[in-house]
Amino acid sequence: MRILIVGASGTVGRAVADALSSGHELVRAGRNSGDLQVDLTDMASVERMYEAAGPLDAVVTTAGHVHFGPLADMTPAQFNLGLQDKLMGQVHVVLAGQRHLRDGGSFTLTSGILAEEPIRLGVSATTVNAAIEGFVRAAATELPRGLRINVVSATVLTEALDAYGPYFPGFDAVPGARVAQAYRRSVEGVGTGRVYKLWQ
Amino acid sequence: MRILIVGASGTVGRAVADALSSGHELVRAGRNSGDLQVDLTDMASVERMYEAAGPLDAVVTTAGHVHFGPLADMTPAQFNLGLQDKLMGQVHVVLAGQRHLRDGGSFTLTSGILAEEPIRLGVSATTVNAAIEGFVRAAATELPRGLRINVVSATVLTEALDAYGPYFPGFDAVPGARVAQAYRRSVEGVGTGRVYKLWQ
Repeated sequence: MRILIVGASGTVGRAVADALSSGHELVRAGRNSGDLQVDLTDMASVERMYEAAGPLDAVVTTAGHVHFGPLADMTPAQFNLGLQDKLMGQVHVVLAGQRHLRDGGSFTLTSGILAEEPIRLGVSATTVNAAIEGFVRAAATELPRGLRINVVSATVLTEALDAYGPYFPGFDAVPGARVAQAYRRSVEGVGTGRVYKLWQ
Repeated sequence: MRILIVGASGTVGRAVADALSSGHELVRAGRNSGDLQVDLTDMASVERMYEAAGPLDAVVTTAGHVHFGPLADMTPAQFNLGLQDKLMGQVHVVLAGQRHLRDGGSFTLTSGILAEEPIRLGVSATTVNAAIEGFVRAAATELPRGLRINVVSATVLTEALDAYGPYFPGFDAVPGARVAQAYRRSVEGVGTGRVYKLWQ
Protein backbone atom coordinates (compact mmCIF):
# COMPACT_ATOMS: atom_id res chain seq x y z
CA MET A 1 0.00 0.00 0.00
CA ARG A 2 0.88 3.66 -0.33
CA ILE A 3 0.42 5.18 3.13
CA LEU A 4 0.49 8.80 4.27
CA ILE A 5 1.58 9.32 7.88
CA VAL A 6 0.69 12.76 9.21
CA GLY A 7 2.72 13.57 12.29
CA ALA A 8 5.49 11.21 11.23
CA SER A 9 8.17 12.92 13.31
CA GLY A 10 6.42 12.40 16.67
CA THR A 11 7.07 9.50 19.02
CA VAL A 12 4.01 7.58 17.83
CA GLY A 13 4.45 8.61 14.21
CA ARG A 14 8.02 7.33 14.10
CA ALA A 15 6.97 4.02 15.65
CA VAL A 16 4.14 3.66 13.12
CA ALA A 17 6.52 4.42 10.26
CA ASP A 18 8.93 1.77 11.56
CA ALA A 19 6.11 -0.80 11.80
CA LEU A 20 4.77 -0.08 8.31
CA SER A 21 8.00 0.57 6.42
CA SER A 22 8.53 -3.00 5.26
CA GLY A 23 6.02 -3.92 2.57
CA HIS A 24 4.52 -0.44 2.16
CA GLU A 25 5.46 2.81 0.50
CA LEU A 26 5.35 5.63 3.05
CA VAL A 27 4.77 9.35 2.57
CA ARG A 28 5.64 11.37 5.67
CA ALA A 29 3.94 14.66 6.48
CA GLY A 30 4.47 17.06 9.35
CA ARG A 31 4.28 20.69 10.33
CA ASN A 32 8.00 21.31 9.82
CA SER A 33 9.50 18.05 8.63
CA GLY A 34 8.92 15.02 6.41
CA ASP A 35 8.20 14.76 2.69
CA LEU A 36 5.27 17.18 2.87
CA GLN A 37 4.55 20.12 5.17
CA VAL A 38 1.01 20.67 6.37
CA ASP A 39 -0.93 22.84 8.78
CA LEU A 40 -3.75 20.53 9.86
CA THR A 41 -5.83 23.40 11.23
CA ASP A 42 -6.11 24.81 7.67
CA MET A 43 -8.34 22.84 5.28
CA ALA A 44 -6.62 24.43 2.26
CA SER A 45 -3.25 23.22 3.52
CA VAL A 46 -4.67 19.71 3.99
CA GLU A 47 -6.04 19.76 0.43
CA ARG A 48 -2.63 20.79 -0.90
CA MET A 49 -1.03 17.95 1.08
CA TYR A 50 -3.29 15.41 -0.66
CA GLU A 51 -2.64 16.89 -4.09
CA ALA A 52 1.10 16.68 -3.48
CA ALA A 53 0.92 13.18 -1.98
CA GLY A 54 -0.56 11.49 -5.04
CA PRO A 55 -2.59 8.25 -4.86
CA LEU A 56 -3.02 6.80 -1.37
CA ASP A 57 -4.41 3.62 0.15
CA ALA A 58 -4.26 4.70 3.76
CA VAL A 59 -3.79 7.78 5.92
CA VAL A 60 -2.59 7.67 9.52
CA THR A 61 -2.74 10.79 11.69
CA THR A 62 -0.74 10.97 14.90
CA ALA A 63 -0.66 14.76 15.24
CA GLY A 64 -2.62 17.16 17.40
CA HIS A 65 -2.39 19.45 20.41
CA VAL A 66 -4.72 20.23 23.30
CA HIS A 67 -4.36 22.62 26.24
CA PHE A 68 -3.65 21.07 29.63
CA GLY A 69 -4.56 23.16 32.65
CA PRO A 70 -6.98 23.55 35.55
CA LEU A 71 -10.67 23.83 34.66
CA ALA A 72 -10.93 26.58 37.29
CA ASP A 73 -9.15 29.14 35.15
CA MET A 74 -9.37 27.66 31.65
CA THR A 75 -10.38 30.23 29.06
CA PRO A 76 -12.71 29.50 26.12
CA ALA A 77 -9.75 30.11 23.79
CA GLN A 78 -7.64 27.53 25.63
CA PHE A 79 -10.52 25.07 25.50
CA ASN A 80 -11.10 25.74 21.81
CA LEU A 81 -7.45 25.12 20.96
CA GLY A 82 -7.83 21.33 21.13
CA LEU A 83 -11.10 21.47 19.19
CA GLN A 84 -9.42 23.37 16.35
CA ASP A 85 -6.10 21.51 16.45
CA LYS A 86 -6.38 17.83 17.44
CA LEU A 87 -10.09 17.41 16.55
CA MET A 88 -10.65 19.65 13.49
CA GLY A 89 -7.15 18.82 12.24
CA GLN A 90 -8.04 15.14 11.98
CA VAL A 91 -11.56 15.97 10.71
CA HIS A 92 -9.96 18.02 7.92
CA VAL A 93 -7.85 14.99 6.99
CA VAL A 94 -11.03 12.92 6.58
CA LEU A 95 -13.23 15.57 4.94
CA ALA A 96 -10.58 16.17 2.27
CA GLY A 97 -9.28 12.62 2.16
CA GLN A 98 -12.62 10.96 1.44
CA ARG A 99 -12.25 12.32 -2.10
CA HIS A 100 -8.57 11.41 -2.48
CA LEU A 101 -8.16 7.88 -1.12
CA ARG A 102 -8.33 4.89 -3.43
CA ASP A 103 -11.37 2.60 -3.15
CA GLY A 104 -11.16 0.48 -0.03
CA GLY A 105 -8.67 2.85 1.61
CA SER A 106 -8.54 3.64 5.31
CA PHE A 107 -8.15 6.47 7.80
CA THR A 108 -6.58 5.77 11.18
CA LEU A 109 -6.90 8.62 13.67
CA THR A 110 -5.53 9.10 17.17
CA SER A 111 -7.45 9.71 20.39
CA GLY A 112 -6.09 8.47 23.74
CA ILE A 113 -6.94 6.91 27.07
CA LEU A 114 -8.08 10.27 28.46
CA ALA A 115 -11.25 9.91 26.37
CA GLU A 116 -12.51 7.56 29.06
CA GLU A 117 -10.10 8.03 31.96
CA PRO A 118 -9.74 11.65 33.05
CA ILE A 119 -6.50 12.88 34.58
CA ARG A 120 -5.68 16.09 36.46
CA LEU A 121 -5.65 19.14 34.15
CA GLY A 122 -7.02 17.05 31.29
CA VAL A 123 -10.61 18.24 30.80
CA SER A 124 -9.91 19.54 27.31
CA ALA A 125 -8.05 16.35 26.35
CA THR A 126 -10.91 14.13 27.53
CA THR A 127 -13.40 16.24 25.58
CA VAL A 128 -11.35 16.22 22.38
CA ASN A 129 -10.50 12.51 22.51
CA ALA A 130 -14.14 11.57 23.16
CA ALA A 131 -15.15 13.77 20.23
CA ILE A 132 -12.66 12.05 17.92
CA GLU A 133 -14.01 8.63 18.87
CA GLY A 134 -17.57 9.85 18.23
CA PHE A 135 -16.53 11.21 14.87
CA VAL A 136 -14.99 7.89 13.86
CA ARG A 137 -18.06 5.94 15.05
CA ALA A 138 -20.37 8.05 12.87
CA ALA A 139 -18.09 8.67 9.88
CA ALA A 140 -17.67 4.90 9.45
CA THR A 141 -21.38 4.70 8.59
CA GLU A 142 -21.17 7.28 5.79
CA LEU A 143 -17.82 6.85 4.07
CA PRO A 144 -18.19 5.79 0.40
CA ARG A 145 -16.34 3.29 -1.83
CA GLY A 146 -15.45 0.86 0.95
CA LEU A 147 -13.38 3.43 2.80
CA ARG A 148 -12.75 2.50 6.42
CA ILE A 149 -11.99 4.63 9.48
CA ASN A 150 -10.69 3.66 12.92
CA VAL A 151 -8.99 5.33 15.86
CA VAL A 152 -6.18 4.23 18.14
CA SER A 153 -6.40 5.02 21.86
CA ALA A 154 -3.15 4.49 23.75
CA THR A 155 -2.26 4.97 27.39
CA VAL A 156 0.89 6.93 28.23
CA LEU A 157 3.88 5.75 26.17
CA THR A 158 6.83 4.15 27.89
CA GLU A 159 9.04 6.57 25.97
CA ALA A 160 7.09 9.52 27.42
CA LEU A 161 7.15 8.48 31.07
CA ASP A 162 9.96 10.88 31.99
CA ALA A 163 7.90 13.83 30.80
CA TYR A 164 4.32 12.72 31.48
CA GLY A 165 4.54 9.92 34.04
CA PRO A 166 3.49 12.11 37.00
CA TYR A 167 0.19 12.89 35.24
CA PHE A 168 -0.62 9.17 34.94
CA PRO A 169 -0.28 7.84 38.52
CA GLY A 170 -0.70 4.09 38.58
CA PHE A 171 -1.49 3.87 34.87
CA ASP A 172 0.16 1.16 32.80
CA ALA A 173 2.50 2.47 30.11
CA VAL A 174 2.90 0.93 26.66
CA PRO A 175 5.93 0.98 24.31
CA GLY A 176 5.57 2.90 21.06
CA ALA A 177 6.34 -0.26 19.09
CA ARG A 178 3.30 -1.94 20.63
CA VAL A 179 1.10 1.08 19.90
CA ALA A 180 2.26 1.00 16.30
CA GLN A 181 0.79 -2.48 15.90
CA ALA A 182 -2.69 -1.09 16.60
CA TYR A 183 -2.26 1.33 13.69
CA ARG A 184 -1.07 -1.57 11.55
CA ARG A 185 -4.11 -3.58 12.56
CA SER A 186 -6.32 -0.71 11.42
CA VAL A 187 -4.46 -0.13 8.14
CA GLU A 188 -4.04 -3.77 7.08
CA GLY A 189 -7.19 -5.17 8.71
CA VAL A 190 -10.88 -5.07 7.87
CA GLY A 191 -12.38 -3.19 10.83
CA THR A 192 -14.20 0.12 10.58
CA GLY A 193 -15.69 2.42 13.19
CA ARG A 194 -13.44 0.74 15.77
CA VAL A 195 -11.53 2.16 18.71
CA TYR A 196 -8.36 0.09 19.08
CA LYS A 197 -7.40 0.45 22.74
CA LEU A 198 -3.97 -0.12 24.24
CA TRP A 199 -5.16 -0.11 27.83
CA GLN A 200 -7.59 -1.90 30.12
CA MET B 1 -33.46 25.64 45.03
CA ARG B 2 -32.94 28.55 42.65
CA ILE B 3 -32.48 27.00 39.21
CA LEU B 4 -31.45 28.61 35.91
CA ILE B 5 -32.80 26.86 32.80
CA VAL B 6 -30.97 27.86 29.62
CA GLY B 7 -33.02 27.00 26.57
CA ALA B 8 -36.25 27.16 28.54
CA SER B 9 -38.44 27.77 25.49
CA GLY B 10 -37.50 24.55 23.69
CA THR B 11 -39.43 21.29 23.89
CA VAL B 12 -37.09 19.80 26.49
CA GLY B 13 -36.62 23.10 28.32
CA ARG B 14 -40.37 23.57 28.77
CA ALA B 15 -40.76 20.02 30.06
CA VAL B 16 -37.89 20.53 32.51
CA ALA B 17 -39.43 23.79 33.72
CA ASP B 18 -42.76 22.01 34.25
CA ALA B 19 -41.08 19.21 36.22
CA LEU B 20 -39.08 21.60 38.44
CA SER B 21 -41.60 24.42 38.90
CA SER B 22 -43.14 23.07 42.08
CA GLY B 23 -40.75 23.46 44.98
CA HIS B 24 -38.09 25.45 43.14
CA GLU B 25 -37.61 29.02 41.99
CA LEU B 26 -36.88 29.06 38.24
CA VAL B 27 -34.99 31.59 36.15
CA ARG B 28 -35.54 31.07 32.42
CA ALA B 29 -32.95 32.07 29.83
CA GLY B 30 -33.03 31.85 26.05
CA ARG B 31 -31.71 33.48 22.92
CA ASN B 32 -34.88 35.51 22.33
CA SER B 33 -37.24 34.71 25.19
CA GLY B 34 -37.42 34.07 28.93
CA ASP B 35 -36.31 36.18 31.88
CA LEU B 36 -32.79 36.61 30.52
CA GLN B 37 -31.44 36.70 26.97
CA VAL B 38 -28.13 35.01 26.24
CA ASP B 39 -25.91 34.10 23.31
CA LEU B 40 -24.25 30.90 24.52
CA THR B 41 -21.53 31.12 21.87
CA ASP B 42 -20.28 34.34 23.52
CA MET B 43 -18.54 33.93 26.90
CA ALA B 44 -19.15 37.60 27.74
CA SER B 45 -22.89 37.13 27.17
CA VAL B 46 -22.85 34.05 29.42
CA GLU B 47 -21.05 36.03 32.15
CA ARG B 48 -23.67 38.79 31.91
CA MET B 49 -26.42 36.16 32.20
CA TYR B 50 -24.95 34.92 35.49
CA GLU B 51 -24.55 38.43 36.87
CA ALA B 52 -28.20 39.17 36.03
CA ALA B 53 -29.45 35.83 37.36
CA GLY B 54 -28.23 36.30 40.93
CA PRO B 55 -27.50 33.40 43.28
CA LEU B 56 -28.10 29.93 41.82
CA ASP B 57 -28.12 26.36 43.11
CA ALA B 58 -28.39 24.65 39.73
CA VAL B 59 -28.08 25.33 36.02
CA VAL B 60 -29.74 23.23 33.34
CA THR B 61 -28.83 23.72 29.68
CA THR B 62 -31.10 22.34 26.95
CA ALA B 63 -29.88 24.58 24.12
CA GLY B 64 -27.55 23.98 21.21
CA HIS B 65 -27.41 23.51 17.47
CA VAL B 66 -25.40 21.24 15.20
CA HIS B 67 -25.32 20.90 11.41
CA PHE B 68 -27.00 17.84 9.92
CA GLY B 69 -25.87 16.82 6.47
CA PRO B 70 -23.90 14.25 4.46
CA LEU B 71 -20.26 13.76 5.43
CA ALA B 72 -19.45 13.66 1.70
CA ASP B 73 -19.90 17.41 1.24
CA MET B 74 -19.69 18.73 4.79
CA THR B 75 -17.50 21.82 5.06
CA PRO B 76 -15.18 22.54 8.00
CA ALA B 77 -17.39 25.54 8.85
CA GLN B 78 -20.50 23.36 8.98
CA PHE B 79 -18.66 20.86 11.15
CA ASN B 80 -17.35 23.60 13.44
CA LEU B 81 -20.85 25.05 13.97
CA GLY B 82 -21.83 22.36 16.45
CA LEU B 83 -18.48 22.62 18.22
CA GLN B 84 -18.96 26.36 18.74
CA ASP B 85 -22.70 26.24 19.46
CA LYS B 86 -23.86 23.09 21.28
CA LEU B 87 -20.45 22.15 22.74
CA MET B 88 -18.70 25.47 23.49
CA GLY B 89 -22.07 27.00 24.45
CA GLN B 90 -22.46 24.50 27.27
CA VAL B 91 -18.73 24.67 28.12
CA HIS B 92 -19.09 28.46 28.51
CA VAL B 93 -21.97 27.85 30.93
CA VAL B 94 -19.69 25.69 33.09
CA LEU B 95 -16.49 27.77 32.78
CA ALA B 96 -18.37 30.88 33.91
CA GLY B 97 -20.79 29.12 36.22
CA GLN B 98 -18.15 27.37 38.36
CA ARG B 99 -17.51 30.80 39.91
CA HIS B 100 -21.20 31.74 40.28
CA LEU B 101 -23.00 28.68 41.65
CA ARG B 102 -23.53 28.27 45.36
CA ASP B 103 -21.54 25.54 47.16
CA GLY B 104 -22.93 22.10 46.32
CA GLY B 105 -24.63 23.40 43.18
CA SER B 106 -25.02 21.43 39.96
CA PHE B 107 -24.76 21.69 36.20
CA THR B 108 -26.94 19.48 34.01
CA LEU B 109 -26.01 19.53 30.34
CA THR B 110 -27.63 17.94 27.29
CA SER B 111 -26.09 15.47 24.83
CA GLY B 112 -28.26 12.88 23.07
CA ILE B 113 -28.49 9.29 21.87
CA LEU B 114 -26.46 10.13 18.75
CA ALA B 115 -23.36 10.23 20.95
CA GLU B 116 -23.37 6.45 20.79
CA GLU B 117 -25.87 5.59 18.05
CA PRO B 118 -25.10 7.32 14.74
CA ILE B 119 -27.90 8.20 12.35
CA ARG B 120 -27.81 9.27 8.71
CA LEU B 121 -26.46 12.82 8.28
CA GLY B 122 -25.52 12.94 11.94
CA VAL B 123 -21.70 12.81 12.00
CA SER B 124 -21.40 16.26 13.53
CA ALA B 125 -24.09 15.50 16.12
CA THR B 126 -22.37 12.27 17.20
CA THR B 127 -19.05 14.09 17.52
CA VAL B 128 -20.51 16.97 19.55
CA ASN B 129 -22.60 14.78 21.85
CA ALA B 130 -19.65 12.47 22.53
CA ALA B 131 -17.53 15.54 23.30
CA ILE B 132 -20.10 16.86 25.78
CA GLU B 133 -20.16 13.53 27.60
CA GLY B 134 -16.36 13.52 27.74
CA PHE B 135 -16.36 17.05 29.08
CA VAL B 136 -18.79 16.11 31.85
CA ARG B 137 -16.79 12.99 32.75
CA ALA B 138 -13.62 15.04 33.22
CA ALA B 139 -15.09 18.27 34.62
CA ALA B 140 -16.72 16.27 37.43
CA THR B 141 -13.23 15.43 38.71
CA GLU B 142 -12.12 19.08 38.94
CA LEU B 143 -15.13 21.15 39.99
CA PRO B 144 -14.62 22.82 43.41
CA ARG B 145 -16.88 23.38 46.44
CA GLY B 146 -18.95 20.22 45.99
CA LEU B 147 -20.25 21.34 42.60
CA ARG B 148 -21.67 18.48 40.54
CA ILE B 149 -22.07 18.03 36.79
CA ASN B 150 -24.11 15.52 34.79
CA VAL B 151 -25.52 15.19 31.29
CA VAL B 152 -28.84 13.90 30.00
CA SER B 153 -28.89 11.80 26.82
CA ALA B 154 -32.35 11.32 25.36
CA THR B 155 -33.54 9.44 22.29
CA VAL B 156 -35.91 11.24 19.90
CA LEU B 157 -38.77 12.91 21.75
CA THR B 158 -42.33 11.72 21.20
CA GLU B 159 -43.26 15.36 20.62
CA ALA B 160 -40.64 15.61 17.84
CA LEU B 161 -41.58 12.46 15.92
CA ASP B 162 -43.48 14.35 13.22
CA ALA B 163 -40.39 16.37 12.37
CA TYR B 164 -37.55 13.94 13.12
CA GLY B 165 -39.08 10.46 13.17
CA PRO B 166 -37.78 9.49 9.71
CA TYR B 167 -34.20 10.06 10.90
CA PHE B 168 -34.70 7.59 13.78
CA PRO B 169 -35.97 4.41 12.08
CA GLY B 170 -36.89 1.80 14.64
CA PHE B 171 -35.71 3.91 17.56
CA ASP B 172 -37.86 4.15 20.67
CA ALA B 173 -39.23 7.63 21.37
CA VAL B 174 -39.62 9.13 24.83
CA PRO B 175 -42.05 11.79 26.05
CA GLY B 176 -40.60 15.13 27.14
CA ALA B 177 -42.14 14.69 30.59
CA ARG B 178 -40.10 11.51 31.05
CA VAL B 179 -36.92 13.19 29.84
CA ALA B 180 -37.52 16.00 32.31
CA GLN B 181 -37.30 13.51 35.18
CA ALA B 182 -33.70 12.73 34.23
CA TYR B 183 -32.83 16.41 34.61
CA ARG B 184 -34.65 16.41 37.96
CA ARG B 185 -32.65 13.35 39.03
CA SER B 186 -29.45 15.23 38.22
CA VAL B 187 -30.52 18.48 39.91
CA GLU B 188 -32.01 17.01 43.07
CA GLY B 189 -29.83 13.88 43.32
CA VAL B 190 -26.24 13.24 44.39
CA GLY B 191 -24.62 11.93 41.19
CA THR B 192 -21.74 13.61 39.39
CA GLY B 193 -19.94 12.80 36.15
CA ARG B 194 -22.96 10.75 35.12
CA VAL B 195 -24.67 10.32 31.76
CA TYR B 196 -28.38 9.82 32.46
CA LYS B 197 -29.67 7.91 29.43
CA LEU B 198 -33.27 7.71 28.25
CA TRP B 199 -32.68 4.87 25.84
CA GLN B 200 -31.33 1.32 25.78
